[in-house]
Amino acid sequence: MLRGIAVSPGVARGKLYVWHRAEAEIPRWELREEDVPAELERLEQALVATRKQLLDVQRQVREVMGAEEAGIFDAHLLVLEDRVLLDEVVRVITRERVNAEHAFHQVAHKYMAALSRVEDEYLRERVADIRDVTARVLSHLMGRAHGLDLSHLHDPVIVVAHDLTPSDTVQLDKRKVLGFVTEVGSQTSHAAILARSLGLPAVVGVPHALREAGSGTYALLDGFNGLLVLNPSDQVLFEYGQLVRRQITLEEKLREVVDQPGVTLDGVRVPILANIEQADDVDAVKACGAEGVGLFRTEYLYINRDHPPDEEEQFQAYRRVATALQPHPVIVRTLDLGGDKFLSHLVPQQEMNPFLGWRAIRLCLQQPEMFSVQLRAILRASAEGNVKIMYPMISGLEELCQANELLETCKDQLRQRGVPFNENIETGAMIEIPSAVLVADALARRSKFFSIGTNDLIQYSLAVDRMNERIAHLYEPTHPAILRLIRMTTEVAERAGVRVSVCGEMAGDPVLIPLLLGLGVHELSAAPPVVPKIKYLVRRIRMSEARDLASWAIQQESATTILQRCEELARQAAPLLFETRRIAL
Amino acid sequence: MLRGIAVSPGVARGKLYVWHRAEAEIPRWELREEDVPAELERLEQALVATRKQLLDVQRQVREVMGAEEAGIFDAHLLVLEDRVLLDEVVRVITRERVNAEHAFHQVAHKYMAALSRVEDEYLRERVADIRDVTARVLSHLMGRAHGLDLSHLHDPVIVVAHDLTPSDTVQLDKRKVLGFVTEVGSQTSHAAILARSLGLPAVVGVPHALREAGSGTYALLDGFNGLLVLNPSDQVLFEYGQLVRRQITLEEKLREVVDQPGVTLDGVRVPILANIEQADDVDAVKACGAEGVGLFRTEYLYINRDHPPDEEEQFQAYRRVATALQPHPVIVRTLDLGGDKFLSHLVPQQEMNPFLGWRAIRLCLQQPEMFSVQLRAILRASAEGNVKIMYPMISGLEELCQANELLETCKDQLRQRGVPFNENIETGAMIEIPSAVLVADALARRSKFFSIGTNDLIQYSLAVDRMNERIAHLYEPTHPAILRLIRMTTEVAERAGVRVSVCGEMAGDPVLIPLLLGLGVHELSAAPPVVPKIKYLVRRIRMSEARDLASWAIQQESATTILQRCEELARQAAPLLFETRRIAL
Repeated sequence: MLRGIAVSPGVARGKLYVWHRAEAEIPRWELREEDVPAELERLEQALVATRKQLLDVQRQVREVMGAEEAGIFDAHLLVLEDRVLLDEVVRVITRERVNAEHAFHQVAHKYMAALSRVEDEYLRERVADIRDVTARVLSHLMGRAHGLDLSHLHDPVIVVAHDLTPSDTVQLDKRKVLGFVTEVGSQTSHAAILARSLGLPAVVGVPHALREAGSGTYALLDGFNGLLVLNPSDQVLFEYGQLVRRQITLEEKLREVVDQPGVTLDGVRVPILANIEQADDVDAVKACGAEGVGLFRTEYLYINRDHPPDEEEQFQAYRRVATALQPHPVIVRTLDLGGDKFLSHLVPQQEMNPFLGWRAIRLCLQQPEMFSVQLRAILRASAEGNVKIMYPMISGLEELCQANELLETCKDQLRQRGVPFNENIETGAMIEIPSAVLVADALARRSKFFSIGTNDLIQYSLAVDRMNERIAHLYEPTHPAILRLIRMTTEVAERAGVRVSVCGEMAGDPVLIPLLLGLGVHELSAAPPVVPKIKYLVRRIRMSEARDLASWAIQQESATTILQRCEELARQAAPLLFETRRIAL
Repeated sequence: MLRGIAVSPGVARGKLYVWHRAEAEIPRWELREEDVPAELERLEQALVATRKQLLDVQRQVREVMGAEEAGIFDAHLLVLEDRVLLDEVVRVITRERVNAEHAFHQVAHKYMAALSRVEDEYLRERVADIRDVTARVLSHLMGRAHGLDLSHLHDPVIVVAHDLTPSDTVQLDKRKVLGFVTEVGSQTSHAAILARSLGLPAVVGVPHALREAGSGTYALLDGFNGLLVLNPSDQVLFEYGQLVRRQITLEEKLREVVDQPGVTLDGVRVPILANIEQADDVDAVKACGAEGVGLFRTEYLYINRDHPPDEEEQFQAYRRVATALQPHPVIVRTLDLGGDKFLSHLVPQQEMNPFLGWRAIRLCLQQPEMFSVQLRAILRASAEGNVKIMYPMISGLEELCQANELLETCKDQLRQRGVPFNENIETGAMIEIPSAVLVADALARRSKFFSIGTNDLIQYSLAVDRMNERIAHLYEPTHPAILRLIRMTTEVAERAGVRVSVCGEMAGDPVLIPLLLGLGVHELSAAPPVVPKIKYLVRRIRMSEARDLASWAIQQESATTILQRCEELARQAAPLLFETRRIAL
C-alpha cells in the first residue's frame, strides 16, 4: 500500500498503467538546396499547429480551471513568437541545409543552455517553457503524439506517472482513465486542481510510485485518504464497497434537494446561488439547483485576445445567462483582472506585489472607456432578466461613487440610443478588502447588497498570500479576526437593510456554513458542483444553533478550536457528507 | 526659471555646474607572454578594489537610506562574483594576450548583448547592473575616478545632471555641493531620498535642464517649490531672503524644544521617541531630544553577511544604546526581514507577493535557533538599561504566544548560564496587520504595549502597495478605515491598560499628529530629524482640540476632507512649520 496526498476524492479500481515520459531521438538529414523552401514551409506548419494546439489546451484549462491557470500557457505561446530563436532556426535550415527537427532542437538547446548559465529562478522557468514548447514542435514535425497517449488501451486504467503537466492532465480521456497517482505534486498543483474539476480520484506525492507499481497490476485508488492499494485483499475491497455505497446514497440525497429551496430546519430561507465563469456554465447552474448566479466572473471574456470584447459580444453573454435563469437573480461582477494582463497578456507580471496592485475596479476606473463598454452591456442585459451589478476590490466610498457615476453616464448613453434597460438595476460592492468592512456603513448607504469575497478578505486581513507555501498555514478562515470582520459587515448591513452574501471559498465548505449563517450572512454562492451539498446541509441545520455557534466562536481566541466545533456541528447535522472521509486501513 | 519636482526642501544660491556623464575610451594593447600573470594580478586587484568600493557605498547608503535601498547594491556585488563572466575575461587575457581593460570591456559587452536579446524587464535591469559595475572596474583599471568628480572645484556649486545614480549621490561632497537638479527622477527615486537624508535642496524631473542651464551661471535653487531660477532678480532674492530667515527662526525654535518634554498646552504628557536603524544612531537620538527609542530596527545587523550575527555582537549593539539612553526606554523590534534575504541575500526575491509572504515573526518562529540568539542578546541588554521587546507582523494570538514561549526558554537558558537580565522585561506587539486590530483584546492580555506600524497597516487594510505608482494615490493615511482601526486599537488598549504608540510614517508628519493624539495614541516615535518638529507641534496644541478633531474625523466619509481639516489645525497651531512652503513667484 502506497501513501500520498489525497487531492481529488473518489475511489477507483482497475489495472495500473505506469507511464515513463519518453525522450525521443531527433533525426538529422541533409537537404538539397531546392528542398529548403519546402522544409521552411514544413517548419511553419508545425509552428502554426503547435500554436493552435496550445490555444486549445489553454481554452480547455480555462474552462475547467479558470483564467489564472490558463495564464501559464501564455509563456508557452510567447516562445512561439520569439523572433531571435525562430530566425536562427530558419538560418540553420537555410545555411546548413539540415532538416527542421534537427535545426529546431539544436537552436532551442543552445538557447536553453545560455539561459541556464544565468543563476536565476525566473530564467529556469523560461527554460522549462522552451523545453515544453520544443517537445510540442518536434512532435508535430515528427508526426508523433506529444505526452501521455492512452489511445492504444482497451480498458480504462489508473495512470501512475512521475508528474503530469497541465497539458497532460487536461488531455486525459475520461473514458480511458479511472484516476491517477503521481510521485510529485501538492494540493494546489495544477494537476490536482484539474483532477477535482474532472471528477477523477487522484493521489499525488507518492514517493517511488514508478518503482513500486507495475503496469497491469490490479489496484485500488482511494482519493479520499490518499492511498494506492496494490492487489487489494477481499477485506479491503469489502470496506471500499461500503464506502462507495455510502457515496451513492449521498449522491441520491443530493439529487433530491436539487428541486427544493434552501431553508433551515427552523424555517429561515437561505438562497443558495452559483458562481460561474462563462455563459456556457448556465446549464450547470440549472442542473445543480442553484437559485440564481451569485457571482458571474467576466474575466474569461477579456483574456487571450488582442482587444477587449465589444458591447454586443458581452451583452449576448450576459443576456444568455439572465434569460435562462429568469426570474432568479444574476449578479455580474465587473472585470476583476490583475496587472495589465488583457492589454498585452503575454508580458509577465511586472508588479512587485500584484495582489496589492493595479487590479479590478482600480484598473477599470482608470480605463473608463473600456469599463463603460462593460457597464452598458450589463445594463442592456438587465432589460431581459434579473441582472445586478457588483464591483470588485472596493476599498472605500470614493471608488464606489466613481463607479456608480460612470454607470449613470452609461444609462444616459443608452437612453439617448433608445436602448432599453432596467432603470432600477441594483448595484452592490464586494467586501474583500479590510477597509471596506471598516467603512461598510458608508458603502451600505450606496449599495443594495454586499458580497463578501472571503478569499481576498482573509489574504489581506492576515497579510497572507495563500499560494505561498511557506506561510499558507497562516491562512485560516476561522481566524477570530475574520469572523469579527464578517460580523461587523452583517451588523452594519442589517441596520441599513442591505443583504449580505458570501461568494468566496468559505461558502463552498459545508463545515463553515453554520458559522457563516450564524454570523448573519443571508445568502451563499458557490461552484455548481458544491451547491447541492451546501443546500443539503442548510436544510439540516437550525438557524438558532448556527447563531449560538457564531456567538460562541466570536469570543474564542483560537482558529483551531473554532474549526473543530464547526466540524462537530456539521458532522452531526449531515453525517453522510463526511462519512467517505472515514476509511481507516 | 525652470520647474520640476521638489524632492528635498531648502534654498541654495550659487553657480551651476553642469555635468555630462563621460563615456571613456577603452585602451587596447597586446601583452608579452611573460606579462600575462601581472595583468591577471592587476585585474584581481581592480576587482578587489571595486568590491571594497561597492561595500563602502552600500554601507553609506544603508546609513543614510536604510537597508532596503542598500539592497540595490547586492545585484552589483553579484556581478563581481559571476564566474562565467570572470572566467571568460581571464581566458581572453591569457589566450589573446590583451590588456585587462579591453578584455573586461569586450566580455561584459558580449554578455550584456546576450541578455538584451531576451525580452525581459528583469534582465534589462541586470544589464544596467553589469554596465555600472563594468564602469567601476574599468575606472579602477584605468586609474580614473568613477562618476561625478568635483575635486577640482574651489567654490561649492549647484549640480545639474541628466540623472544621478545612488552611488553618484552618496559620493557627493557636501562641502562642494549646495544642491542638485536632475532631468529625470521622482519623489521616491533614490537620489531624492538621499538628498533629503543629506539635507541638500534638490529638484528633479526638470526637462531639458542640461540644455537650458550653463555651467557658471548664477542661480537660485528652491527645494520647497521645485524651482531653479537662473540669474535671479533682486526681487526674487529678497523674497527668498525672507523665506530663509523664517527657516532660521524655525530652526531656533526647534533647538529650544530639544530639552523640553513632549506635553500639550493643556498638560497631557506625550513622550516623543526616535526610530533608529543601528547603534551609531544613538548620538542623533540624544541630539534631537527624543525621550528614548520607540523603534530600534535590527535588520542592519543581519544583512550583507554570510552568517547571522552571534549573541555577543548583538548584545553589544543593544547594550550600547540602552546604557547611553538610560533611564529612557529602548524598544528593540525583533528581526523584520522579508523573504530569505539574509540567508542568501544575493538571490532575488522569489515570492509572488513578498509583502504577503514569509516575513518578520513568521520567519523567526520558523527559525527558532536564530531567533533565540537575538532574544537572548536583547535579554542580556535589559540588565543594563530600560530595554523592551517588540514583535513585528503579529497577525494573531498564536504567534504572540509562540514568541513569548520562546522568550521564556531563552530566560531559562540565561539563568542556567548565570547571566543577568531584567526578569520583568516588557514585551509588546506591532499592530500593523488588520487582523491584529480585530483581535487586539486577546493580544492586549499578553502585551505591555502596542506600537502601530501605520505604513504596513495602511498597505494591508487598503490592499495597496504604495511603491506601485499606478495605485499609490489609494494609499491614504486619513482614510476613514485607517482612523477607525487606530481607534479600535486604542479603545481596546485603554480598557486593558496597554500603552499605544505609533512608529510608522504618520507619526513623523506634523499634520497628522493632532489626529493621532485625538484618536487615543499615547506616544509617538519618528526619525531623529523630525523629532523636534513633532515635539514643537505637540507643545502647541490642546488635547481637547485633538479629541474633537478625531471624533469629527471618524464620522467623515472622505480622506481628503479629513486631511484638509488636519492641515488647517496644524497650520493654526504651528504656522512656522509650514511657512517655508508658501513662496509663490
